[in-house]
Amino acid sequence: MNSIFGKVNEMIEEKELKEKIGSVASFTGSVYKIRKMSGFSFVILRTARNLIQCVLDTGKETYEELCENASVRIKGMVRREERARAGFEIDIREIEILSLPAAEPPVVINNKEVKASLETKLDYRPVTLRNQKERAVFKIQEGILAGARKFLMEQKFTEIHSPKIVFAGVEGGANMFNLEYFGKEAYLSQSPQAFKQMMVAVFDRVFEIGAVYRAEKHDTARHLNEYIGLDLEMGYISSFYEIMETETAMLQAVMAYLSENYKEELELLEVNLPVIESIPSISFQEAKEWIQKEFKRNTADAYDFEPEEERLLCQLVKEKTGCEFVFVTHYPTAKRPFYAMEEEGERNVTKSFDLLFRGIEVTTGGQRIHDYHAQIEKMKERGMNPEAFESYLMLHKYGIAPHGGLGMGVERFTMSLLGRSNVREAALFPRDMNRLVP
Amino acid sequence: MNSIFGKVNEMIEEKELKEKIGSVASFTGSVYKIRKMSGFSFVILRTARNLIQCVLDTGKETYEELCENASVRIKGMVRREERARAGFEIDIREIEILSLPAAEPPVVINNKEVKASLETKLDYRPVTLRNQKERAVFKIQEGILAGARKFLMEQKFTEIHSPKIVFAGVEGGANMFNLEYFGKEAYLSQSPQAFKQMMVAVFDRVFEIGAVYRAEKHDTARHLNEYIGLDLEMGYISSFYEIMETETAMLQAVMAYLSENYKEELELLEVNLPVIESIPSISFQEAKEWIQKEFKRNTADAYDFEPEEERLLCQLVKEKTGCEFVFVTHYPTAKRPFYAMEEEGERNVTKSFDLLFRGIEVTTGGQRIHDYHAQIEKMKERGMNPEAFESYLMLHKYGIAPHGGLGMGVERFTMSLLGRSNVREAALFPRDMNRLVP
Repeated sequence: MNSIFGKVNEMIEEKELKEKIGSVASFTGSVYKIRKMSGFSFVILRTARNLIQCVLDTGKETYEELCENASVRIKGMVRREERARAGFEIDIREIEILSLPAAEPPVVINNKEVKASLETKLDYRPVTLRNQKERAVFKIQEGILAGARKFLMEQKFTEIHSPKIVFAGVEGGANMFNLEYFGKEAYLSQSPQAFKQMMVAVFDRVFEIGAVYRAEKHDTARHLNEYIGLDLEMGYISSFYEIMETETAMLQAVMAYLSENYKEELELLEVNLPVIESIPSISFQEAKEWIQKEFKRNTADAYDFEPEEERLLCQLVKEKTGCEFVFVTHYPTAKRPFYAMEEEGERNVTKSFDLLFRGIEVTTGGQRIHDYHAQIEKMKERGMNPEAFESYLMLHKYGIAPHGGLGMGVERFTMSLLGRSNVREAALFPRDMNRLVP
Repeated sequence: MNSIFGKVNEMIEEKELKEKIGSVASFTGSVYKIRKMSGFSFVILRTARNLIQCVLDTGKETYEELCENASVRIKGMVRREERARAGFEIDIREIEILSLPAAEPPVVINNKEVKASLETKLDYRPVTLRNQKERAVFKIQEGILAGARKFLMEQKFTEIHSPKIVFAGVEGGANMFNLEYFGKEAYLSQSPQAFKQMMVAVFDRVFEIGAVYRAEKHDTARHLNEYIGLDLEMGYISSFYEIMETETAMLQAVMAYLSENYKEELELLEVNLPVIESIPSISFQEAKEWIQKEFKRNTADAYDFEPEEERLLCQLVKEKTGCEFVFVTHYPTAKRPFYAMEEEGERNVTKSFDLLFRGIEVTTGGQRIHDYHAQIEKMKERGMNPEAFESYLMLHKYGIAPHGGLGMGVERFTMSLLGRSNVREAALFPRDMNRLVP
């Protein structure tokens, strides 16, 4: 028997190389670009987060096989060079070729931008993501989630993982993907709602980051059929405003985390992180009236916003307060799910909110019904059969604190943060009505 | 418009109360148990992680409505009490009842253990998880994943989220759940294999924590049909032993993280964390022979271990080395997937490994084929049509470093760590052939 000791090779990037100026370093990467000059070549190496400028003295050695997209190990002297963006260059002493591509990429990926339609970019996603700007989107997305997780764990939320194969949707069976599950009919979860409520009864505060499925036939720039949901739920709240306060604090923490840990990507993509001191809040009714008044605009939907209204509201709020976020509260009961708590003495509105960010809804949340009898009543009013929800109702039957929570669409939030116009740009391998590959 | 400021109410548990000995505190929880004594009652409050012992002077106030599983806010004096486990008790001054249950639990949940069959526990999961020991399993599971994530991010792995609705399985179409996806046939992903390989070409090192689906008709104590996979993949490796070294280091980090942050739960469940200095490694062939020799046992499967053999091998390794983990390397090519790299000059074995822990396989890993032509050849040998894998093969075609990775079943690992005999005990809401609810 051998013994395997715990050890991970250091991954050397710009930061580490900068600390080695004046000495020889050995590091790996993919050849991003070769620029042939007279007597030497610039070899730009792509590491996990950076582009490293190396200089090959072609008078000495040419490395016939070396080409773009080769994976290599480079040994070289780290030389201070004020004209280089990073403040140094690598004088190559040796290149070890680790692997070679079989063909040139179908689209040019080593310019600043990938100049291709979104469709083409997505068709060749495994290749186009290798572009410096394309991939930066997903480092920032990682940071959004890492920052949110760090904040939530500090606030004693427990992270859970609920199943995505479910027997029925809490929001009803419409718009769900169904599958056969060992002879039974099953669905793909369209929300961890039931599970996170159940788990509030266990851990008081929980969150989940996981896949959410909607079989909606919306072929728009803002819909995906599989997306990443950031869901949280918290018990012992005194009002649904506590959820909004928690989200505000979480977003503040996310922005701080991003600017601390993802500076390079934010600069590369020229992202302006919103400064959040507080987030304005307005009721749905007031918002509707404000938009109608300001824009002399009739609304087609009395119970929800049209996309254009979300855009206009954000515009008004930004003009008035400078803030790019706005909470809209008290959505009509008719448009909220059966577990939404109604406002006392005002049954047609719910203790609920959406968060809009730069013109688009990114979060839906609210307080839930915690009383067993009230929940049963509400189900009956909606024509639902409480017996079909026996396991969900155990939650209420055996006692649960007043609670509420929210769900955020992570790709949408990423899209808004980065100022993109199509949510697919913020999905690694998007799933929509027409796209199942790659 | 109102302004919503970022703010989260403090969640007060044992640790915070202990710091308030001698003063009055206000905190929330669910009534776990009421023990009526003469003139007073013990009211045990369940907070997110602890049980807090409170004393109610029933001579002064009785709180008629107060019952087990009520959610309450308690205001009381934190009094030092050496006889109490926590070193203090709460003298209740005021109880505010926030919500009441509608019925008593169908199983007793406020004893040390839930005395019921696993079937019953799972049927009433939303209730039985409220037991102190039942829920502790999932705090530890949270810690395993949080510890692994912390380690991987420190080692510059990028966290990704790949889609679970896929057009075809990298391991073939057998044992996959299928669904109709807008008129096309789709499957639930049985591994993020293809995506994590694609993303190695983007970020060099990646990991994913997400759902994995297997439609296997295995009704055993070690199989789930939906489980949490911890998958990682790393580029620029010089051999598959680097993956094993990384896993060893990750497990060391996980154990350290658990003992630092989950002490209460580890003590409650009497978990002995394995001490990992190094992990022994043995080839599949040698292991088979060793087991046959030591136990005079014929093997039914020349290409894989029977569950009993996994148990026996762990027993032998523990006797010989004291270690509860063992890496088994060089699995037969016949039993490894089409992307597994073969050993040089020994085509019948792969550069692969499994990790066994306390008698059961918890990880499968290895080096992957990175050369485009080699991968095409291998697919053809297996009777696969490379054209059907065009998007996957972009990875190889346009250049990818030597790489490899692993996948760990998180529930299985949790089960082994906690010394449980059924993987369902370590799944929040398990999905098996017979269980789709809750």
